[in-house]
Order: sequence, then structure tokens, then C-alpha cells
Amino acid sequence: MIAKRVSNWGRWGDDDERGTLNLITPAKRAAAAQGVRHGIIHSLALPLGASGPQVPDSPKPPSGNTAWRPPQVRSNPVHTMLASGSDPEEINGLGGGAHFTDDMIHMHLQASTQWDALSHCYYEDMLYNGKPAASVTSAGARYHSIDKVADDFVGRGVLLDVARLHGVGRLPGSHVVTPEDLQRAADAEGVMVEEGDILLVRTGLLADWAATGSWLAVKERPQPGLGIACIEWLHQQGVAALAVDNTAVEALGTGAALKGPFHMLALRDMGLHLGEYWFLEKLAEDCARLQQYSFLLSSAPLPFENAVGSPINPIAVL
Amino acid sequence: MIAKRVSNWGRWGDDDERGTLNLITPAKRAAAAQGVRHGIIHSLALPLGASGPQVPDSPKPPSGNTAWRPPQVRSNPVHTMLASGSDPEEINGLGGGAHFTDDMIHMHLQASTQWDALSHCYYEDMLYNGKPAASVTSAGARYHSIDKVADDFVGRGVLLDVARLHGVGRLPGSHVVTPEDLQRAADAEGVMVEEGDILLVRTGLLADWAATGSWLAVKERPQPGLGIACIEWLHQQGVAALAVDNTAVEALGTGAALKGPFHMLALRDMGLHLGEYWFLEKLAEDCARLQQYSFLLSSAPLPFENAVGSPINPIAVL
Amino acid sequence: MIAKRVSNWGRWGDDDERGTLNLITPAKRAAAAQGVRHGIIHSLALPLGASGPQVPDSPKPPSGNTAWRPPQVRSNPVHTMLASGSDPEEINGLGGGAHFTDDMIHMHLQASTQWDALSHCYYEDMLYNGKPAASVTSAGARYHSIDKVADDFVGRGVLLDVARLHGVGRLPGSHVVTPEDLQRAADAEGVMVEEGDILLVRTGLLADWAATGSWLAVKERPQPGLGIACIEWLHQQGVAALAVDNTAVEALGTGAALKGPFHMLALRDMGLHLGEYWFLEKLAEDCARLQQYSFLLSSAPLPFENAVGSPINPIAVL
Amino acid sequence: MIAKRVSNWGRWGDDDERGTLNLITPAKRAAAAQGVRHGIIHSLALPLGASGPQVPDSPKPPSGNTAWRPPQVRSNPVHTMLASGSDPEEINGLGGGAHFTDDMIHMHLQASTQWDALSHCYYEDMLYNGKPAASVTSAGARYHSIDKVADDFVGRGVLLDVARLHGVGRLPGSHVVTPEDLQRAADAEGVMVEEGDILLVRTGLLADWAATGSWLAVKERPQPGLGIACIEWLHQQGVAALAVDNTAVEALGTGAALKGPFHMLALRDMGLHLGEYWFLEKLAEDCARLQQYSFLLSSAPLPFENAVGSPINPIAVL
Repeated sequence: MIAKRVSNWGRWGDDDERGTLNLITPAKRAAAAQGVRHGIIHSLALPLGASGPQVPDSPKPPSGNTAWRPPQVRSNPVHTMLASGSDPEEINGLGGGAHFTDDMIHMHLQASTQWDALSHCYYEDMLYNGKPAASVTSAGARYHSIDKVADDFVGRGVLLDVARLHGVGRLPGSHVVTPEDLQRAADAEGVMVEEGDILLVRTGLLADWAATGSWLAVKERPQPGLGIACIEWLHQQGVAALAVDNTAVEALGTGAALKGPFHMLALRDMGLHLGEYWFLEKLAEDCARLQQYSFLLSSAPLPFENAVGSPINPIAVL
Repeated sequence: MIAKRVSNWGRWGDDDERGTLNLITPAKRAAAAQGVRHGIIHSLALPLGASGPQVPDSPKPPSGNTAWRPPQVRSNPVHTMLASGSDPEEINGLGGGAHFTDDMIHMHLQASTQWDALSHCYYEDMLYNGKPAASVTSAGARYHSIDKVADDFVGRGVLLDVARLHGVGRLPGSHVVTPEDLQRAADAEGVMVEEGDILLVRTGLLADWAATGSWLAVKERPQPGLGIACIEWLHQQGVAALAVDNTAVEALGTGAALKGPFHMLALRDMGLHLGEYWFLEKLAEDCARLQQYSFLLSSAPLPFENAVGSPINPIAVL
Repeated sequence: MIAKRVSNWGRWGDDDERGTLNLITPAKRAAAAQGVRHGIIHSLALPLGASGPQVPDSPKPPSGNTAWRPPQVRSNPVHTMLASGSDPEEINGLGGGAHFTDDMIHMHLQASTQWDALSHCYYEDMLYNGKPAASVTSAGARYHSIDKVADDFVGRGVLLDVARLHGVGRLPGSHVVTPEDLQRAADAEGVMVEEGDILLVRTGLLADWAATGSWLAVKERPQPGLGIACIEWLHQQGVAALAVDNTAVEALGTGAALKGPFHMLALRDMGLHLGEYWFLEKLAEDCARLQQYSFLLSSAPLPFENAVGSPINPIAVL
Repeated sequence: MIAKRVSNWGRWGDDDERGTLNLITPAKRAAAAQGVRHGIIHSLALPLGASGPQVPDSPKPPSGNTAWRPPQVRSNPVHTMLASGSDPEEINGLGGGAHFTDDMIHMHLQASTQWDALSHCYYEDMLYNGKPAASVTSAGARYHSIDKVADDFVGRGVLLDVARLHGVGRLPGSHVVTPEDLQRAADAEGVMVEEGDILLVRTGLLADWAATGSWLAVKERPQPGLGIACIEWLHQQGVAALAVDNTAVEALGTGAALKGPFHMLALRDMGLHLGEYWFLEKLAEDCARLQQYSFLLSSAPLPFENAVGSPINPIAVL
């Protein structure tokens, strides 16, 4: 069974909470840094604002029993000010003519560019490394919370531009990325995926947004993404973490009976962190221009205690 | 007048919103990356949790008119779960036995390790580069919001360990850091502060927390920090951004009539971003051990639209 | 000019923050209570949940400059649990086998059944009774906040069922309610609108929701509501407060150049509190059945300090 | 065993979610209304603001393992503005010179004057009427949520002023209220507690706050409140709901092994809703002055879907 074959439970000890991030060694990290040539920088984060990427469903008449509706639909951040630039002295004054502004945010931790924590998914009542699912309580995750890996996610990034491989700006919704796609993209780019790499896969899904500002593509189903067959390939290459420019890393709306199988095998069995909603358009342009598909990637999460995910601003340095 | 002497208004154009971050050139950034030797990584962020670093005031009886109290006291993040590991299928089930967990955060954007945006402080109704203070409205900052510099803050970091210079674990509350402190620390460390460096200054204020878990030192007044005299030195060196391991970069509780003068000159006149609550203890240990006080620093903010600050997880790579 | 004719500035003193609520005398209130015959109770509140009444706009491609979007669109409450019934002892246990559950809410104060505070609207930089608009800061309203009238809004309620008057389940979107509508409804119902009454006007807009659970009618424009001509009639009758079963009391989408004129005259000039999103369907049925259109109404807001509105659960007792 | 003796499970059907509120009949409610003589009104709610009643603990050095801290400490509401009176037209303008203000709240649902829902407490994995505790999930309470009783809590209120009975402004912390206290207070007041009454018990705990604005008394332990022996008396009288001017209805800090026993028996076995943080000082003054200890009480919760409690503004009309 595939879950067994890709399992990393116990590989780095029974208390391990880093999973495949263990594959990023200091030597790898140093080499990645030293490989920077141009000093060109790209933020791979979508903006955190009121307009997206979460797109509310068009309203439709309810059906059946409407009394019980789990309120788990993600929405965009709500940003509010505590002190503005036209408030009176008593609100924003520090004395002596000095003034400040201040603000707050209320947000879902996984509604835009982010890393899933290993505690984000499970089956058979077990999280990665055999921890009980019930250890994720109303107070958050006791194990595998995102703050446990807050000094991680820095190393060599490799972009596999599968959309470019296929000569399209954006993969069609029906495209389920295969291991062959990944290997052929690497070959075409002249890059070797090595143990400890943080792998970025481009489907082109966010190209529309980059061009027009519209998030509608994010809602389409099916949506291109990685197929379950990629899991073993990722395991064999020793990928340390995986991020994609779509909403769920894996292909959505394919009609498979099992929902989220890729998440389950990656987060729970492999201990492979998954990144979603990564914005790869500008990085991909530069990679093509410079014919360089590896770079230094710095993408540490915020250290939210007990959290099962974190928004991030991943930075690629070429 | 000092404000005039250190002003960078117009230096990078009338529309500039990056301030001294303009001093980080691609060549500087590439050199910083190439200078990494060990691949050792340090997160410089405090945990984002319910226990600190914001410490509520001990309650005291109110005095005078209690009807009007501006509610601007910062508090620690409130983390809530939307789906836990013991919820029933209808809440956290994806089908086929797959399950997920999910969460939210409500937080002040400047209550722990963070960057102040240039729109965070002002006087005489003007922000940096001559933008009107009133452009910071209830909808946030139209200019100089933190998302404008979301692909920045990556370059060479330099740690000036002023506490170590003075042979103490932690500077006393009365210590106002001088330009001489900074220069002598650099000299003692054998490091040159260069144009475009991101400067980190260590007072040792968070040593107590690191040792005991107590945040009480954060509340003490006076609190060690940079004196106003440092501003011109920073300007002359061409520092790109400045972060300190205390609550406000500058010395607090010194009795000066003007409150927050350092903030005003740095953010508003120089366009120098300020970082607060940075955790430098472990980095400082390694710098001393390796006799290396410069490193690659990656500290980009989250791209909160219109926000006047952002929590960050700064990463130093030695 | 109409604003002058209906103005109540100074009528109850320069410090008055109650406006027309002053017209509810203890004697009126006692009479309203004593007039209760059946002990029948009706909540006039919509549910506070994730499904409505705020309906997000269908997504559409953005146009023009998308960089600046005031984030003031109201959304439905976000309810999160802090302790559930399947959490372990350490989270929800009190000792000795006792357990608790706990929760939080993040919500707009005016996104469902509510009272607008008098500080909610203004023109010419003045609030009701001549207070400066700038007294509403980032810390809230210094004057006319909703907590100032937290022990009010209890008295005789009168329902004017304008939809019923016109023999329809719901007024068409183009129907702008006139003073004649109000007077004729009162006449048809055999009720006299008296000084100090809290007036409820039914358009039938929420009938669809009551029947099908769909909130779509709330989004339609034009939307039936009170016309500006009603203002003087309300002033003459001495109405103490006014609530309607639509989103803004007044008619929307009529094409008038001035937006929200009714709000301005009512809240700012008259000091007349306005209630929106009131659910009147079941009350209206009972009023018709019992041929009784007056009742005891208890609709005090929550005492949110400095707030410009409050969600409420108005209770009618027949 | 006491739980069995006071149990109301099944008494109003297996699907009942109202508990002892079933005892408030329309006839009772009509009589309560008709009994109003003066039209005097009292809000029994504490202000919902940043200053209290939640008082943060004084900071103290942590002990032992600080890595896991359930974040369930309640705090005061966080109120933020979305549009203020000095914002520019683009933020708060409606067109034609009309302007609005708007705001939001983030709050615990049980941190001030409130009703506990019947789903707030449980033992032996069962809620009131035999519903499973696990039905309270991350999405809230499927049964016994506070919105299920949103058109309730209106009827005859009776104040038993136990502090006055004992001739003190405030009961000492060590005072555990007994059934005799309750009966003697009723006798002294000349009031009969009848089936279907909403009972209010005054300990005087909030007298300090009323006098000085200080919330410190709320933190003291022991804290006066009802003893477990009152449960059977309440059951025998047929009390419909119970509210007290303290933090937990029941006596706190008494050293009993079982924590919260009163809550368990009341909410879970009797189906008796509990009200906490009720402000009774001014009502008590008027009751004494008028020699009238019964009144019309209107205290419906906000209809938060799936919530296990709700802030309220209870209104007494004498």
C-alpha cells in the first residue's frame, strides 16, 4: 500500500515534528545561499486583503434543513484600524506633537499563501508520526503545530514549470499533474531535484489574476494540481516541502471517491508540508529569462502557537 | 535641525514608498547570500501566543472620569479553531475517511516581533516623503502601507551586541544607547556597518524571557534602547532598516518631553523601517561563538493591504 | 427647509443624547405594559449566523485601479468555539468530572437586526444636537454612542402593515412608502400613532426569507422603504423610534441624487433612532389575527461602549 | 441522589430545548406585564467595553512546562471602527454630502452580563435532556444553543436581596447562600416566588464597581454565591431562570472538590438557564424604595446560531 511505502513515521525519531524538513541540512542551505548570483528577489505571496483570494459563493436558495450549517467557509482577512491619521490627539497622540497609527487583523490562517502544518490533515485518527488526532483540540494542536517549524523552510527552492512544459499559460482544469510531468519539466529546465529541495510546481492557475485581478479561476472545478501518483516520486527524490500555485496542491474536482488523498499521504504519512496559493508567475518569468530554475527560498511561517497553518510571504532570491 | 539633516524626502522620487530599503541593492543582496558559510538558521521571532509579549497592566482603581477610555492597549493574539481532531465527520470530514483541522487568528499587527510601516508614525500632519497623515483612514494607509515593501527586507544583516560590549547579559533600564556604543560594538566585533545593511541592535532585554519565560522585563521603565543621537549615525552609515530586541527600538521612560522622537525621525523623515520585539539571544550566542556578526537576513512582512505594520518571522542564516 | 422644520436640536437640552426617545415617558411605558392581554411573545430578530442576512456580491472581474478598496462591506458573524464537548479534560474540564463549553463572536454591529446609534450618520460635519462629527474617532463615538441609550427602547410598539394595506405579501421594489400609506395603514388597523410610540413599518421584504430561507430579496434594488416625505409626518406624530423590515429603513435604489437622506434627517436632525432588518412576519400575522396593532415592545441595545450601533433582539408582547 | 431528584429530562418531551423556561406561560407573562405600575426601567447590564468586567491576572513568572497553555481566559470586547467621523469621503461618504460611521466587535459571549445556554455545561458526556456532549463541536452546539430560546426570558422577575437581608452592602466572600437565605429574603420582602418566575439574587458583589469603577472585587476568592443546597429549593419553587450579580451564580473558592456543581445540576439536570454578571444595584434601590420586589423582566438573548451563551441587556420594568 502506498501509505506504507512513503511513510516516514519514526524515521527521525518518535518525537519528530519536522517531517521531511529534516532533509534540509545546513550544508544544503549554505550551498543554496552561495548559489545566489543576481540578488533578484521575488515575493511569492498573494496580497492579504479584502478582495481575495477567497471568493464567496454566489448566493443560492437553500435546500432541505437549513438549521445546521457548519460555518467553516474561509473568508478574506478583516483589517481594522485602531488609530488613524486624522484622529485627535487623545487617540493617536504620543505627546510633543508625535502621533501614531495602529491596526488589527482577523483572519483564517490558511486562506491565502500559506503552509499547512502537519497537524492539518489526518485519517484513521492519527496524525503524522503516530500522534493522536484528538490531540488537536479547541486550544489547537499539541503536536505538529506550525510554530514547531518556525525556524525552518529556508533552503534551495526548485521551480518545476509544468504549464510552460506543456506550452500553455495555464494548465486546463482537467490536467492532473503526473510524475512524468514533474520529471520532464526538470529535464527541460536542466535542473535536478535533489534531496532536501523545496519544490514549487507551477500550474499557471493564478495567471488570470495576475493579468486581470479576477480570482474567478480559483473557484473553477476541476482545478489542475498534482495527482496522487506524484507522491512516490516526491518521496524518492527526498523533497523537503512542496508548494503549488493553486488552492490545494492536489488536483480538485476529479471525481475521485477519496477526497484530499494527496494531503493525507503528504502531511500525515510522509510528514511533507504543503504550500497553497503560492504566486509563481513573476518568478517563473525570471527563471525562464535567466535559464535558472533553482534559487534560495526563505519561507518560514509565523510562529503561531498551536496553529495548524500559517500565512507566509515566501521569498525567492535568484 | 536634525530632521532636515537626516531627511530622505524626494531622494528616491516623490512617489517612493520604500525609503532606505532602496539602499539594499541586488549586488548587496547577492553578496550577503554568497557570504553564508555554515547554513545555520535562526528565527528571530517571539512566539505568537496567548502568553506574551503583551503583559496586561495589573488592575488598579480608576480615577476621575472613567466614561471615555481609548481602547488602544495591545493584547496578545486570540487563536481559535474551526475544526479540531475530535470533531465529527460533518464538521471536519472530507469524505472517504479524510479529515482536516482549521483555525483563525485575531491579532494586533504590532504586538510582537514586527516591522513598523513608514505610515506608523508622523508629526506636523505629514508622513514620510510628504504624504498627508490624513491618508491613513479607517480603511488603512493609502501610502507607505506594509504591503508596499513585501518583497524587500532581504539582505545583509549585522548584529551590534551592545550588551556584550558592556559585558552584561542585559543593559540596565537607564542605558540610552549612543552612536559611540554602536561604533564601538562594531569595532569590537570586527564588522563594518555598510550602506544597505539591516542593523540589529541587542540590548539583552529579552534574556530574562529566554531564561525564565517571564515577560515582566518588557514592562519595566525606563527600558534600554537607542538614543536620539544615533539617528545621524544611522543616516551616515546608510542603514537600510533597524531592529532591536526591545519594545520600541528607542529608549523608553527617559523623561524626555517629546515622546517617540526616534520613531518620528526614523519612520517619517528618514524612511527607515523599525523592527521591535526581535529575539536576538540565540543569534548573539552563535555570532560570538563563530566570531561572525554579519549574515543573510530574510525578514519580509506579510503583505497586509493598507496595514501600518506586520508581524514577521525574521530568519538569519549564518 | 425640511431639516430645520423637523430638528430637535436643543429641545431636550444641549447635552441630550437620547433624542426622540425622550418622548417615551414612564406613564406611556406603564400603559403599554398594562395593555398586554395575551402574553404572546415574538422575537423580531433575524438569526445571527453565517448564512445571512448579508449576502456577498457575486464575484465579478475588477475594473480600473484595484489597488485601493475600502474594506467596509459588511459580512455575517464569525462564531468560533473555545471549548467543545469532545475536548479533553485539560481544555474543558473544571475538575470532578464537570465540563464546560465556551465561544466567541466577531461581528459587524449593524449587519442584522439592530438599532443605529444617533452617531451613525451626519452631514455638514455635525451629528445630532450639534456635536462635531470628528468626535467619532478610531476609538468610537464620544457622543450619541449606543450605550448611552441602553436603558431605553421599551414602550408601546405600533405596527403599520403597509404591505397588507396594499393587499400584497410584499411591496414591490419600486414602492416608496408615503405619509398617506402610513396614515391609511393606521386607519385600516384602527390604531392611533401617539407621541412616544416606537413605530414598526412592514414592507414584507423578509417574507421570502421566512418562506424559503433565501436572502436574495435583501439584495434587490430598488428596495421598498420609507420616502423622505414621511419624515415630517413622523415628526408630527412624535414617534420615538422607527424600525422597518428592510435593510435601510428608507427606500433604496430610487435614483435620488442624495444618498440616505432619510437617515440624515432622522438620526442627525430629529434624533430619531432607526432600526433595520427587523423581522415582522410573524408579529404581523398575530396582529391581523388578534386585530391588535399595538403591543409592549422591549428592544434595548447591548451597551457597547462608544459604538455606533448594536445588534438587538426586539421582543413584542401582545 | 440530588441530580435525579431535580432532573427535568423528558418532562417537556425528549426534544425539549427550553428547560424550565417552559414554566413561563403566556398567562404568567401577561400578568407580569399588567403588574407594571410606574413604568420605571432599569438596564441590568454591565457596560461592554475595554475596561471590564474581565480583569487580567497580574503577570507572574511561569512555572514548569510553558509550552502548552490553553488560551481560554476570557477578555473584554475589542471594538474597532470601520468608518469614523473624520474619514474622507471615499471611506464614509454616501454621496450628496451624506456620511456614515460603522464598527465591529470581537468578544467572548460569556464575559459580561449574559445567559449561559443549556449546552454550556455537562458531565458524564451528557447535556440536558440526554443529548450527547459531543454534539457541541467546533461549529457550536447542535442542541440547546442560545438561539433556540431567543423568544423567551420575558416574564415576571423577582429580586431576592440577600445582601440587604443580612444588612450589608455586600455579602462577604465566604458567604454561601442557603435556601433559608432565599426564603427569608422573600419573606422579608413580602414576595412569593412562584412557578415560572425569573429569579434574581443579589449578593452586592458589584457594589464596589458601582461606587468606584474598580472591578477588583470580581477577582476575589472566595466569592459569595449560591450554595448547592439551593438547587432543590429552586426546583420546588419552579423557578424558570436564575441570575445573580456575581461571576458564576454559585459560590466560588469554597474549597469543594467538585468544581461548578451548581452549574452542572442547573444547566444539565434541571434545564435551568443561569445568568451571570447581572448588575442589580440600582434595581435593588428602587425595589426597596417602592417596596416592590417583582417586576416585568425582559432579557432575551441575541439569537447567535449554535452559540453556548449570549451577552444580554436585561430590562426590568417596575
